[in-house]
Amino acid sequence: MKSLKVKPPVVLKLGGSVVTFKDRLETPRLDVIRRVALEIAEAKPESLILVHGGGGFGHPHALTHRLMEGFKGGLSQLVGFSETRLAMARLNSLMVEALNRVGIPALGFQTSALVTAREGRISSLNLKPLSGALRLGGVPVIYGDAVIDEVQGFTIVSGDMLSSVLARRFRSPLLALGVDVDGIYTDDPKLNPEAKLIRRIKVGRGLKGVLEGVEGSRSLDVTGGMKHKLLEVKRYVASGGKALIFNALKAGNVARVLKGLEVEGTLLEN
Amino acid sequence: MKSLKVKPPVVLKLGGSVVTFKDRLETPRLDVIRRVALEIAEAKPESLILVHGGGGFGHPHALTHRLMEGFKGGLSQLVGFSETRLAMARLNSLMVEALNRVGIPALGFQTSALVTAREGRISSLNLKPLSGALRLGGVPVIYGDAVIDEVQGFTIVSGDMLSSVLARRFRSPLLALGVDVDGIYTDDPKLNPEAKLIRRIKVGRGLKGVLEGVEGSRSLDVTGGMKHKLLEVKRYVASGGKALIFNALKAGNVARVLKGLEVEGTLLEN
Repeated sequence: MKSLKVKPPVVLKLGGSVVTFKDRLETPRLDVIRRVALEIAEAKPESLILVHGGGGFGHPHALTHRLMEGFKGGLSQLVGFSETRLAMARLNSLMVEALNRVGIPALGFQTSALVTAREGRISSLNLKPLSGALRLGGVPVIYGDAVIDEVQGFTIVSGDMLSSVLARRFRSPLLALGVDVDGIYTDDPKLNPEAKLIRRIKVGRGLKGVLEGVEGSRSLDVTGGMKHKLLEVKRYVASGGKALIFNALKAGNVARVLKGLEVEGTLLEN
Repeated sequence: MKSLKVKPPVVLKLGGSVVTFKDRLETPRLDVIRRVALEIAEAKPESLILVHGGGGFGHPHALTHRLMEGFKGGLSQLVGFSETRLAMARLNSLMVEALNRVGIPALGFQTSALVTAREGRISSLNLKPLSGALRLGGVPVIYGDAVIDEVQGFTIVSGDMLSSVLARRFRSPLLALGVDVDGIYTDDPKLNPEAKLIRRIKVGRGLKGVLEGVEGSRSLDVTGGMKHKLLEVKRYVASGGKALIFNALKAGNVARVLKGLEVEGTLLEN
């Protein structure tokens, strides 16, 4: 495919809890967004795709209208599908504007125009606009979104699912997942002070035990929290990729990750 | 293609001079947008795609950054490309919200995520999200946009070009082009009081003479005004389609067109 002839981009995913206040309706963490934008500008990555989650923009609408259950028929849910997508587009515009403001040629792309799904999994992905944007030296900025599903009517494609699929398709050297904790722990660190950060996980073995440890993700999340994240990333890592889960709320971490410097976190390898 | 098995939609295109004040920066004609939304709700079309132009949202940005000339290199123009797309997404959100508010399940799709171009012409178009939206009973709302161009870097795909291509691909029974005049005249009606409305044009013959009459389109328009409109629509009409250019600023016209009633205007036929 001619359109894929671009330098494989690093995929940086910023969780919804990093760029928004997850428990407040449509409230962006503007200080974090601005800081991350400056860190990206500082690191000047050669080729980058940025993916962000929904947080307080996507999840409340999706929950209200039960988008996870698919289309049940009826005007109200269909309008809810529309409103969820509008809210996500608003968050995306905020991200793109913040990046443009510090001199990063960020180009926002609406995920639900790029992607359709089949029973909750991405079944088609229009890569041409993204590879075109990369060829120009732009930074595509995309996001978890409510998308058309051939079987269920619509579904939610999480930022994690999307970033893992993109990292695989573009043969990315690194999928960096910025979250609001330091990485994967042996147990929930907010409940158990004995919980230890896991520095390295081989996804071939050992993932099952880790998944049991993160079974109960802290906050309500329509896309399933840390367990979901691991299961999505697994596919990319199994194809030979390298993923790092790190704390994007700690100043300097995004810049360090993009510069290839060491950052505390959980490395997922094959 | 399975995804195209939907009832062929009417394609209604609303010009940038209908939904915005073309000479003011990012100023929507909210009264017109609300009225048109109510007329669509009244007409209850079975299957509809709405396309809108850029007007005062897209054109000023595109002109400032000379997007028509393609990518010349440099951060400033690339950020201008991004800003133009953000402005168009803002107008699209306004349109979708106005439609949702009166009970139309409008679903906005970003054109530059659906479409890429080659030397200014649409070369790829991701129809899956649109046909999926139609199958759900939704009304896709798309727009003229600045898009990735494989050769020039980026280009502008006008709402006219997009609506003509969509009408052809979806085998639409009607492409209705709502503008701010009654149709095509023998000369510019604002300059020449003798100018007469042309009721019917056979695009096979006679188009050349008509094109000479509309050569000098009134207002500055990066997408080329009425002549451009005719040339774009010609392709769809030549494939057997029927196009009507009508005045969408006159109350009741949009509802009448969607109900299949007669409306003053210019009918383009093969």
